[in-house]
Amino acid sequence: MPTGHFTMNPELSPLTLNRLSVYLRALRQVHLEGTQRISSLELANRFHLSAAQIRKDLAQFGELGIRGVGYDVGHLRGRLEVVLGLQREHLAVIVGAGNIGSALARFPGLNSGNFRVVGLFDVAPNRIGVEVGPLRVQPMSELAPTVAARQVELGILSVPADVAQENYEMMVRAGIRAVLNFAPLQLREHDGVRIKNVDLLIFLEELAHFLG
Amino acid sequence: MPTGHFTMNPELSPLTLNRLSVYLRALRQVHLEGTQRISSLELANRFHLSAAQIRKDLAQFGELGIRGVGYDVGHLRGRLEVVLGLQREHLAVIVGAGNIGSALARFPGLNSGNFRVVGLFDVAPNRIGVEVGPLRVQPMSELAPTVAARQVELGILSVPADVAQENYEMMVRAGIRAVLNFAPLQLREHDGVRIKNVDLLIFLEELAHFLG
Repeated sequence: MPTGHFTMNPELSPLTLNRLSVYLRALRQVHLEGTQRISSLELANRFHLSAAQIRKDLAQFGELGIRGVGYDVGHLRGRLEVVLGLQREHLAVIVGAGNIGSALARFPGLNSGNFRVVGLFDVAPNRIGVEVGPLRVQPMSELAPTVAARQVELGILSVPADVAQENYEMMVRAGIRAVLNFAPLQLREHDGVRIKNVDLLIFLEELAHFLG
Repeated sequence: MPTGHFTMNPELSPLTLNRLSVYLRALRQVHLEGTQRISSLELANRFHLSAAQIRKDLAQFGELGIRGVGYDVGHLRGRLEVVLGLQREHLAVIVGAGNIGSALARFPGLNSGNFRVVGLFDVAPNRIGVEVGPLRVQPMSELAPTVAARQVELGILSVPADVAQENYEMMVRAGIRAVLNFAPLQLREHDGVRIKNVDLLIFLEELAHFLG
């Protein structure tokens, strides 16, 4: 087609996205150290990855390392950032200022580089106004205005399971576009508002299987 | 072979284990409510699952619901608990009493039913002795004796990335058999000591991809 507009990559599987995130983190580290070129084998050895998998994953969007020279670290880093939607900052809010929500509000990874938490909300009157890391807990009535005013895209849901669905709905109505859910249940997803579940018990149960 | 000893199920994939955990949680809930029989379709509708996937997953270890009658809830629950290693309690320790470690120490899901956290350890002198939920932060020198004395199987690693590998090695030497790792890096795994990584940034990056 005679157009300069490129479409997004074909939909990548969650597992592929996960590996691309790992590669990006590795590339950022070697880039910071001043490395300009790196081979799939060097990347693999240093970060305990598979060189063949790296080559296969990167080839699918046209990134081919040059034999004996490797990949251009800066260029590849930039490409992965675009593929992963990390060429810019995404603002997030946390709903639920209990233990998990408070831990997340203080988590450095949520406030560096591509993500920034700009609000922490709760229904409990005794939590409102409390300072948690860089934030102050706000009442739920301020969720929608905050999301609208700051164009917040991500919601982090850390409320008890029995109120998770209604809080997810509030996030959807407020204009949140994707939700990271820490409540241990399957939410009914609204079209266009992607949910990613983080169920800590399921991780433990997966390990328990190997303990017998 | 003329033996009454059954071997473990064939190695199940992490995705299958994850789904079995979800089914078990659903079955425990309907069992609590007094339901004795449930069909794959009823389970699917109620918990937003796929009936065909439920039937396929359960069929691989011989559980076939009776058409028009469904599965025996109590029996199936017991079978899944055995498959998932959840027919008994597993003791866990947390290494790293920062924000994430402290949140986990207070997390009800880690102290109910199949898991119990019996120790929280840190190197920082100002953290030692501090009460966090039901625990008191202990020095690292008490890790190995605690693991040995209480036959602790699970380690939860919530330390900064740059000291994660050495703390994992300490868990291995102490006798821990499986590790849930919250540090954002790939650890070198020791034979027989399974690692499950929980990288919160990777979840966010996966969502960011859909935001563009």
